[in-house]
Amino acid sequence: ALAVGLALGLVTWWRWRRPRPRPRPVREVLFFPSQPSCTEALLAEAAGPGSAKLRPCPCPLPRLDCSLSRLLRRLLSARRSLDLCLFAFCSPQLGQAVRILHRRGVRVRLLTDAMSMGFSGSQIGLLRQAGIQVRHDEKTGYMHHKFAVVDRRILITGSLNWTTQAIQNNRENVLILEDVECVKSFLDEFERIWGEYDPSNYTFFPQRQ
Amino acid sequence: ALAVGLALGLVTWWRWRRPRPRPRPVREVLFFPSQPSCTEALLAEAAGPGSAKLRPCPCPLPRLDCSLSRLLRRLLSARRSLDLCLFAFCSPQLGQAVRILHRRGVRVRLLTDAMSMGFSGSQIGLLRQAGIQVRHDEKTGYMHHKFAVVDRRILITGSLNWTTQAIQNNRENVLILEDVECVKSFLDEFERIWGEYDPSNYTFFPQRQ
Repeated sequence: ALAVGLALGLVTWWRWRRPRPRPRPVREVLFFPSQPSCTEALLAEAAGPGSAKLRPCPCPLPRLDCSLSRLLRRLLSARRSLDLCLFAFCSPQLGQAVRILHRRGVRVRLLTDAMSMGFSGSQIGLLRQAGIQVRHDEKTGYMHHKFAVVDRRILITGSLNWTTQAIQNNRENVLILEDVECVKSFLDEFERIWGEYDPSNYTFFPQRQ
Repeated sequence: ALAVGLALGLVTWWRWRRPRPRPRPVREVLFFPSQPSCTEALLAEAAGPGSAKLRPCPCPLPRLDCSLSRLLRRLLSARRSLDLCLFAFCSPQLGQAVRILHRRGVRVRLLTDAMSMGFSGSQIGLLRQAGIQVRHDEKTGYMHHKFAVVDRRILITGSLNWTTQAIQNNRENVLILEDVECVKSFLDEFERIWGEYDPSNYTFFPQRQ
């Protein structure tokens, strides 16, 4: 009987000793430049049946599973919220994805750098026209973050500015992380900056004495 | 005896059921701008007794545990290798830390962007004078990564360019990760670029027919 008990003990010990499959916090690592690829079908699918993009895209680019399409898919997985903290935002594909999410009812907030809003092809005007809340700095230092938090759960961060130049030509990296404490640090940083860049604090508006 | 055996089994089961403290892959998240702080003592200690910096620094800055000092400490923990892949490298403190590691016998390799080598205060010349291997791009796209791998084990990556402007004035983030698969992805990217930027491939050298 002692032997049976010990055997049972050994079996449970062996069972619990095996490493349990725990999801890795680093879900994906994307490197850029991304392969040239058409993302129209991906965006049309996300936009839903009401979209004007029902005809297939006539462009000659292949439809590949590339770094850009993977980044787009992560963003388009948002169901409740998208917090964007981006030095520059000029990529039309990423701009379209964010507008689709806003139309779907996802709460989008965007923090950006004032200087980059003047970049050629900046998406900020289109995003504001669509009704998305945008706040920017007014200091000499840059708001140089390049991160996004999807549904307060997934962190997308790296060296990549959201521009076509960076996506197509630069050596860049993007990490996709699901780590509660790490996401919390970035959300806290987002809220700090969101509060600091409140338009009512802008000093170029006349102040009442 | 059966009861004793079962009790032993239960104890081992309970023991192994408890979540074992596993180190989190995301070791640290640093945000910038860093608080103004004097890092001379930290660097003098790392340089060792042979260093010329035995007298205390006369500057009025406090010695704080800030984002810059934490980044320096992670770098200075290198014992065997340091692989740097940095768009810009102009911070004198970080430059000094890398030269100290090289003197200590750590194998340092640096990949950078050709354009940024002309930035005011670039450390590249000093690093090359010290005997550190540096390779750079010669293409139109930027080598825009900002990562370092310490001892092929710790990944330091984020939005931060290694410049005083970024450290003191910008909103930036740096992640410190210990995740085997993720570090391997970044090391593979490093080796790809290191091979591509081999000076013997530079097209501005005359090619034999």
